[in-house]
Amino acid sequence: VGHIGVENVLVDLIIAPEGSRTAAVYRALRAAIVDGRLPAGSRLPPTRTLAADLGLARGSVAGAYERLAAEGYLSAKVGAGTFVAFERINRTSRRAGGSLKPRPGWVFEALPTSGGAAAPTYDFRVGIPDAGLFPYDAWRRLLTAETRLKANSLGTYAEPSGHPALRAAIARYLGVSRGVSASAEEVVVTNGTQHALDLIGRVLITPGDVVAVEEPGYPPARRLFASLGAEVVGVPVDADGLVVAGLPDTCTIVYTTPSHQFPLGRAMSPARRRELLDWAGRRPVAIVEDDYDSEFRYSSRPLEPLYSLDAAGRVLYAGTFSKSLLPSLRTGFLLTPPGLRDALVAARQMGDGYGQPAVQAALARFIDDGLLARHVRRASKVYADRHRQIVGALIGMPGAGLILSAAGLHVAALTDADSTAVVREAARAGVGVDDLRAYSTGQTGFVFGFGAADPSLIAEGMALFAGVLARHI
Amino acid sequence: VGHIGVENVLVDLIIAPEGSRTAAVYRALRAAIVDGRLPAGSRLPPTRTLAADLGLARGSVAGAYERLAAEGYLSAKVGAGTFVAFERINRTSRRAGGSLKPRPGWVFEALPTSGGAAAPTYDFRVGIPDAGLFPYDAWRRLLTAETRLKANSLGTYAEPSGHPALRAAIARYLGVSRGVSASAEEVVVTNGTQHALDLIGRVLITPGDVVAVEEPGYPPARRLFASLGAEVVGVPVDADGLVVAGLPDTCTIVYTTPSHQFPLGRAMSPARRRELLDWAGRRPVAIVEDDYDSEFRYSSRPLEPLYSLDAAGRVLYAGTFSKSLLPSLRTGFLLTPPGLRDALVAARQMGDGYGQPAVQAALARFIDDGLLARHVRRASKVYADRHRQIVGALIGMPGAGLILSAAGLHVAALTDADSTAVVREAARAGVGVDDLRAYSTGQTGFVFGFGAADPSLIAEGMALFAGVLARHI
Repeated sequence: VGHIGVENVLVDLIIAPEGSRTAAVYRALRAAIVDGRLPAGSRLPPTRTLAADLGLARGSVAGAYERLAAEGYLSAKVGAGTFVAFERINRTSRRAGGSLKPRPGWVFEALPTSGGAAAPTYDFRVGIPDAGLFPYDAWRRLLTAETRLKANSLGTYAEPSGHPALRAAIARYLGVSRGVSASAEEVVVTNGTQHALDLIGRVLITPGDVVAVEEPGYPPARRLFASLGAEVVGVPVDADGLVVAGLPDTCTIVYTTPSHQFPLGRAMSPARRRELLDWAGRRPVAIVEDDYDSEFRYSSRPLEPLYSLDAAGRVLYAGTFSKSLLPSLRTGFLLTPPGLRDALVAARQMGDGYGQPAVQAALARFIDDGLLARHVRRASKVYADRHRQIVGALIGMPGAGLILSAAGLHVAALTDADSTAVVREAARAGVGVDDLRAYSTGQTGFVFGFGAADPSLIAEGMALFAGVLARHI
Repeated sequence: VGHIGVENVLVDLIIAPEGSRTAAVYRALRAAIVDGRLPAGSRLPPTRTLAADLGLARGSVAGAYERLAAEGYLSAKVGAGTFVAFERINRTSRRAGGSLKPRPGWVFEALPTSGGAAAPTYDFRVGIPDAGLFPYDAWRRLLTAETRLKANSLGTYAEPSGHPALRAAIARYLGVSRGVSASAEEVVVTNGTQHALDLIGRVLITPGDVVAVEEPGYPPARRLFASLGAEVVGVPVDADGLVVAGLPDTCTIVYTTPSHQFPLGRAMSPARRRELLDWAGRRPVAIVEDDYDSEFRYSSRPLEPLYSLDAAGRVLYAGTFSKSLLPSLRTGFLLTPPGLRDALVAARQMGDGYGQPAVQAALARFIDDGLLARHVRRASKVYADRHRQIVGALIGMPGAGLILSAAGLHVAALTDADSTAVVREAARAGVGVDDLRAYSTGQTGFVFGFGAADPSLIAEGMALFAGVLARHI
């Protein structure tokens, strides 16, 4: 139960003091309690404090408290203070019959990776980085330095495109880490990848437009584009990546994950990249390249992003710090061709104004001081070990067809077994793994995340999983 | 110029070492410089550091640096280090011809209150609170306490509806400060009011729907609803507030600012509130009550919000900490009838996932510790003085018809003069004031914000303004 300031109630009292002061205090507090403004469990200030705030004699307040206590509205707890004891009649029930209904399609689905869900013992959930690797001390130092009156113009409104220093830092960092030649002007800072996709969709999609997504693919992207009125078409993925020949002739957006296909994990081949860009060069289509976790690489050098290969200005590149640092930073970015930049910034401005200046300024320093590069290098070594353990367990596991991948925070395997049944049974054994069916209409398989996995439990968890799978093949 | 880690370039080197080590380092760095990954001005690490990172002899790296310097790619600055000296050919130019175009309507307009704009000497810009009043020390303490591995499940994903502690704290605070009986379940945390309006619009507006807004009114709301496909209709405001008789027969949303009409500043009368709710009770329309700055009150007690008076479940209440604390917190909230809650949370999840857990947890503590109530009380006294000064100057100012208002951070006055010309001329005299025409198609007048105003300059600024106005009447 939180401590509650009752200052504003008191202000009302002073303005309308009728009859005795005690009665006025009593009536005001009782009204606040009865109609729920001071709900059960609220702690009231000591009579001395309240009397001083009100400019009344302490006796006036004490008298009111006594009367309320006698009537059961208040109760005292030894050593803790005076609390509201009255449970108001719940008023929201009369609102329940309200006839306002949302448009169809807005259905909330809890994510399995939410903090509210209990973590399984053997935690192979997808999409969670290891928060224990994050350099909190350095981050706190930078964040507090930017949380000062002098640090930013915090009273005024900031740039919707993002903090200029962060845009420049991102451009420089991508040059070094991903071989992307981008200027700060091409960068739009977002609240993460989902937000980047939202801005793109708002700016490009007219209801009825076709948007092509990978199948299997990332469900929140599919749902977002559908919510903006698009007809979402799934396009298959083969060993080279998105099947360009399967793309609809006309579509507004192609959403793809070439660095580390979500969820299968392969990289799009150089030939397929070229084919996709050639296809896109012949029509007014936007290619959205979602590079969500390929900072973590375990072999071979990364392939050039589509954004770097694109000569026609068709590609938008979406990056995020959710995996490379922490999802709770709520910070990602878009690289955009010049023709869309102002519109994307306008969409950001209209949608939620702008991002957190202190976080953005701190992140700029974090990148420029080399802390991001150092973190990625260190975390890559840790994740490489977990990757190796999982891949080692899956190689030769009866019933599981490992899909090789060299980057990111998860690995996938196909199966002929009923993957949904296997995943359910594994969960009962304490093994949390994703069902490929959650990402696909057709394929059966499993997705093993290792960002959250305790490395000392991976072998045991995979052995348990193998045992479950063996009973289904 | 920031310090740049070149670790990832080096990793590539180790994987493909052909010929001499010096040549491999040389080629890799040259390639990175030529194609812009290491742009001009980037600082390279000392040869000793780079050699150690690579596991090479220092001489191999030094030889590569010397060769690159001899060829003009690098230059040394005494006492500073080695820098990239080569300006790559700008590649973005070839992207400029890209044919991707946004849908119509996405036009970025810089806000006059942005931090990038120079502040006028006599600063009466609208919508900026005084950041100097914000208790930074207390806030930093709370924020850093929440920026720790143990504080939140920062690696996993948080609730789209907002941190549970913050939702509960907001519900309690509104009970005390605004007389609103709301449970934590009715609260959805947003990135501010604009974001709240966006969620409502996404969930309720089908393209072609009519949305009614106040005229004069808040342009970003109008633009947002239009961007979501609504036909936006302006409805007049009189001395009692929004003219209910002027509302279109069928509309999906009515957007209103009853506590402190934006920008005229009046409160909607109790009779008009009742009339609006009666009207809404007879049709499936959502009333959006934007209560953006009425925490600051200078006389009389506040009227009950529409949300509290609403028996039919038609009202959504949008609140924000942008004015009561700081816009840079990027935090506001919605109170919502139960029928819309899940859809609004789904829209938030699809749009940008969820808000910043550390900020939300810190804000919950800030409210529960009584710091918000104390800040509002203290800031109200400061703002009351500025309000009094401006009102005092406007009363009896020839050509200016003051509109009385008892809350918020700005005051409006009507005029028969050409307000646009007056505002322009006042700006040349160092007086920054808003033209009412920016918010209205018809009326001429002025809006004086005082959140950012230096109290010692208000009288002088208002006298200068009166002098300018006198030349136009």
